[in-house]
Amino acid sequence: MTTNTKPILVSFDQLSVFIACALERVGLPEQDADKVARLMALADLQGSDGHGVIRLPQYVKRILAGGINTRPNIRVVSERAAIAVVDGDNAMGHLVMSHSVDVAMEKARQAGIGWVGARASNHAGPASLYVRKPIENNMIALYFAVGNANHLPPWGGMEMLLSTNPIAVGIPAGSEAAVVLDMATTVAAYGKVKAKAKRGEQMPEGWMIDRLGKPLLDPKRAEEGFLLPIGAHKGYGLALIVGLLAGTLNGAAMGRDVVDFNHDDVTPTNTGQSVLVIDLAAFGEPDVFKAAVDRLVHDIRNSERLPGVERIWLPGEQSHLKREKYTADGIPLPIGQVSDLTALAFELGIAPLV
Amino acid sequence: MTTNTKPILVSFDQLSVFIACALERVGLPEQDADKVARLMALADLQGSDGHGVIRLPQYVKRILAGGINTRPNIRVVSERAAIAVVDGDNAMGHLVMSHSVDVAMEKARQAGIGWVGARASNHAGPASLYVRKPIENNMIALYFAVGNANHLPPWGGMEMLLSTNPIAVGIPAGSEAAVVLDMATTVAAYGKVKAKAKRGEQMPEGWMIDRLGKPLLDPKRAEEGFLLPIGAHKGYGLALIVGLLAGTLNGAAMGRDVVDFNHDDVTPTNTGQSVLVIDLAAFGEPDVFKAAVDRLVHDIRNSERLPGVERIWLPGEQSHLKREKYTADGIPLPIGQVSDLTALAFELGIAPLV
Repeated sequence: MTTNTKPILVSFDQLSVFIACALERVGLPEQDADKVARLMALADLQGSDGHGVIRLPQYVKRILAGGINTRPNIRVVSERAAIAVVDGDNAMGHLVMSHSVDVAMEKARQAGIGWVGARASNHAGPASLYVRKPIENNMIALYFAVGNANHLPPWGGMEMLLSTNPIAVGIPAGSEAAVVLDMATTVAAYGKVKAKAKRGEQMPEGWMIDRLGKPLLDPKRAEEGFLLPIGAHKGYGLALIVGLLAGTLNGAAMGRDVVDFNHDDVTPTNTGQSVLVIDLAAFGEPDVFKAAVDRLVHDIRNSERLPGVERIWLPGEQSHLKREKYTADGIPLPIGQVSDLTALAFELGIAPLV
Repeated sequence: MTTNTKPILVSFDQLSVFIACALERVGLPEQDADKVARLMALADLQGSDGHGVIRLPQYVKRILAGGINTRPNIRVVSERAAIAVVDGDNAMGHLVMSHSVDVAMEKARQAGIGWVGARASNHAGPASLYVRKPIENNMIALYFAVGNANHLPPWGGMEMLLSTNPIAVGIPAGSEAAVVLDMATTVAAYGKVKAKAKRGEQMPEGWMIDRLGKPLLDPKRAEEGFLLPIGAHKGYGLALIVGLLAGTLNGAAMGRDVVDFNHDDVTPTNTGQSVLVIDLAAFGEPDVFKAAVDRLVHDIRNSERLPGVERIWLPGEQSHLKREKYTADGIPLPIGQVSDLTALAFELGIAPLV
């Protein structure tokens, strides 16, 4: 028996339209379905394959189970000149965070900086999605989120009270690609574990340990262990701080209150996310800043390399190149994933992706 | 021959007065000398012994060499409702950052959040010093700084273009100690490497690599290698981002422009630091937030531990306990350090510390 392991290539539009169809079919208004679909497809377009269309079956399942509000009233419930708290009304997280970023940008334009915290939100895809619009408007953005399942114990502990709580930061550059850091506070994001499982691959040592403290390599056994934080106690500290800034501060779930959306499709997750936007124009001439970023990027890229290292990468550079390549050639989807999406299409009675 | 290795205990006031005397002697106005001295002694009081009075001889040397402006005009050079850029006029960093925190707090009181970036600043001690005042005023604070010497190459590189660029975050709690994260973006601080060398011990794998990219375990060969960032490329990304937010954004030194203050006492360092202050009251009732932090702290502290782990610590908890202990018993200073300070006192013609 032979297996075709070559991925199937789909265009951004093809993928986006398919996702929109599925989301509309399960009850999202057309405009909302389109917005979420474009953001999900953008995730795949930049190679964030653990956070794009791979999540569609789970989102659909949750929407059908009544765990997502498809007719939400996303609104600012509290604000000052430079901050706002947004109640997402249990909408798709992509809609809550798109709105929150717009509010933060508007505040930054006036006050120099804008911070928007969201509660009653949901999983919103890869953190870096939400720094792109600020970047295109000469703004720096920082994004903090509480993950939707606890996979991380405090340092020295065994009880998974923390999630991978990711951070994204986007810094505009001039002629260079923006510097975009998008990282979980664990060595590996849980989405990457899921992607490994889907591809039938083993995890490298150092990603997870089991409850006996032994390396866990089989991603299909992920539920039997927990992720490891970066820099030991430092990553634990970062995960905790991000959770406090994105969860507790916004009145959103954190610690024991976090709903594991892998095992519960109904309970509102009360997901918390925070976004901070900084308007470069408030600090000086944006072009001067962006030229300084370009210089730094050149200095780093052209600096002396360790033996065997072919290239020094800037944060976000590989995603940027993937976005360019996948825009030109198509987004590669593993055949197993395409099968899942075909099954989903059949179930929903919509046209399959390919 | 026997050596007395027992540390000498000094009170906070004793230490603070001594530092103030020394700084006044080399030209700082009384009020400025007092302010810097109290912050430096506070560093020792919380156990940040690499960033307190241990730095005094170096500061004095730099001031005497003309590398610090003792009559600075620290001023806001650009501002909006929620941001300000402060020009430190090459003052002691402690003065620049104290002022910056005050400005940020004032802005946060009005706008909900305040961000102040400083340029033409200098080394200001441990990052966590500057989150304490906001904490006492029901405010969250984040602090980012560019380090004053580059010890870190980009991931895959050998050229030390980055510093350990620290991050501090302070989160007020209720009856519990505030959660305070204060971390460099490298696995080990350079001081820990020096301590290992002094004790004739090997370093664990993961602290440093040599110029072939191989683990460097002998701390006596430290000059032949580099520190490793936490979480590999992630820590490199964090160090870079912190440098962009604290340095480049403020028009301060970053990358190749960073002045190594260990080898140059004269050139203005143009150090950059940024502080972000968030007023809890803008998000809701501060007591509700602080009670939620307390609950989270209890959940974490009392959660199931790995075999052999005696206690699960919260970030900042060990510093907090040291602050309490040292306030009661005195701050322990190694005898060698006291000798150095006695020599300095003799040199400056001031009364010795003990």
